[in-house]
Amino acid sequence: MTPAGRLMVVGLGPGPERWLTAEAQALLAEATDIVGYGPYVDRVPPSAARRHASDNRVELDRARHALELAEAGARVAVVSGGDPGVFAMAAAVFEAVEAGPPAWRGLDILVAPGITAMLAAAARLGAPLGHDFCAISLSDNLKPWAVVEKRLVAAAAADLVIALYNPASKARPDQIGRAFEALRSAVGERLVILAKAVGRPDETIIRTSLAAVDPREVDMRTLVIIGSAATRVIERPEGEAWVYTPRRWEEGA
Amino acid sequence: MTPAGRLMVVGLGPGPERWLTAEAQALLAEATDIVGYGPYVDRVPPSAARRHASDNRVELDRARHALELAEAGARVAVVSGGDPGVFAMAAAVFEAVEAGPPAWRGLDILVAPGITAMLAAAARLGAPLGHDFCAISLSDNLKPWAVVEKRLVAAAAADLVIALYNPASKARPDQIGRAFEALRSAVGERLVILAKAVGRPDETIIRTSLAAVDPREVDMRTLVIIGSAATRVIERPEGEAWVYTPRRWEEGA
Repeated sequence: MTPAGRLMVVGLGPGPERWLTAEAQALLAEATDIVGYGPYVDRVPPSAARRHASDNRVELDRARHALELAEAGARVAVVSGGDPGVFAMAAAVFEAVEAGPPAWRGLDILVAPGITAMLAAAARLGAPLGHDFCAISLSDNLKPWAVVEKRLVAAAAADLVIALYNPASKARPDQIGRAFEALRSAVGERLVILAKAVGRPDETIIRTSLAAVDPREVDMRTLVIIGSAATRVIERPEGEAWVYTPRRWEEGA
Repeated sequence: MTPAGRLMVVGLGPGPERWLTAEAQALLAEATDIVGYGPYVDRVPPSAARRHASDNRVELDRARHALELAEAGARVAVVSGGDPGVFAMAAAVFEAVEAGPPAWRGLDILVAPGITAMLAAAARLGAPLGHDFCAISLSDNLKPWAVVEKRLVAAAAADLVIALYNPASKARPDQIGRAFEALRSAVGERLVILAKAVGRPDETIIRTSLAAVDPREVDMRTLVIIGSAATRVIERPEGEAWVYTPRRWEEGA
C-alpha cells in the first residue's frame, strides 16, 4: 500500500533563483511542508506550506522528521542548497529509510537534482572542470582525516581537477591548510581557486596557487577548486582572467 | 573596446525541460543565434533565433563559428546537453579563445551551468554520489587509453564513486569492457549502474555489478556509475530499489 504522502528532496542550487530548475519550482509549489536547514528554508519562495527549519548538524533527525510527515500523508519538500545528492540531504534521507520502519520503503520519494556548487563556480570562472575531475568533502565529522588525505593525494596523482566541498568550519579551521600541504607534497604546484558565495551579492573569487594560497581565506561558504597540471589561465586586457582545463590530454602538461 | 555581441554557453540539462534552469531559459530567449550539435539545437524552444546545427565531432569549429558571430555583434547561445563545463562545449570555447585573435579576449562570454548527466542519474536512483566521487570521460579521442586506465584505477583504489561519461561509441565499442576489467582487477566487486537516456521516454536503468555487467548494454547515451565499497542498495516491497552512498565513511565498508 503506497501512502498518499510524498517526500521530495529538492536541490535549490547555489543561491540565486536563476539557478533553480523548473522541476524544483514546481515541487516547492506543491509541497505542504518544507523541511531543511534554516537558511535553505528561507530561500523557498513564499507559499502556504508549513516550514520546519532546523540546525545544520542534525541531518538524520531532519530526514526522519520529513519521512514521518510523508508517512502521515504530507507532501514534504526536503530542501538542500546545490544538488541534494552531493554532500547534502539525499543520502541522509536514504540512510534514515534504511534504518527506519519497513513502511518507509513503500513511500513515494523523488529526488530533484540541482546545480551543485562546483558547477556554478566552474561556470563563473570559465571551464576548470572541462576534463576529468573529482569532488571530495573535507569534513572529518564523517570520515577520518587519513582517508581524506589519501583520497586527495590519489586524485592529484591521477591528475584530476579537484573540487573541495566543506573545506572549513569553525570546529576545524586548520584542515584546509593540511590539505593544501598534502597536495603540495604530492604534486608540487597547481592553480587554486577559492570561490566564495558564488552567485550571491557577496561573491568573491580568489585565483591563487598551492604555493601562495592563504588557508585563512577559506571559510564554510567557499568552494575550492584545485587545477590539474593541464589547467590554464587566459589573461584578458580588461575583466577577470578565464580559467579552463582543455578537453585533450597532453604529454607532460 | 567590448563589442556589443555576447557569447552564452548554455547547459540544457539531460533532456526534459523540467531540468532547465530559469537562467538557461532566459538566455535562450534573448539569443539571436543558436549554435550546437543538431540534437541539442533541436531541444531549444521555438524562437526567432537563427539556428546553426552541426555534427558532434567538430567542437572547435563550432566554437570558432560562435565566437565569430559574437564578435560581429550577435547574441549567440552555444548549447550543450547537461552542463556545458563537464565534457562539453565550454572548454572548447575557451580553447578556441586562447588560440584565436586577441579581440576574442575582449568578448562578453557567460557560461550558464546545467544539470549534468551524473546528477540526474543519481537523483533517479537515490543518492549514489552521496560521498566522494569523480567524473571520468572514457573517450580516447582526447587522451591515451593508458591515462584513462590509470585514472580509473587510482579513483577506485581511493574508493571514490566513479561516474563514467562517453563510455562507448561506434568507433570504440570495446573500451568500456576494458574499463570494467581494469576495475575488477583493482578492487574486485562493486555495484554498477547503467543509466541510459535518463529523463527521456526511453529511459532504462540497469543495476548490476562489475562481475555481472554486460559491456554490450552500454552505448553512447549511457552514464555509468560504479559504486564505492560503501554504496548500498535498499530493496523495496514494490518499485525499484534505491541506491545510495552513506555520508559517513566506515572501516572496511
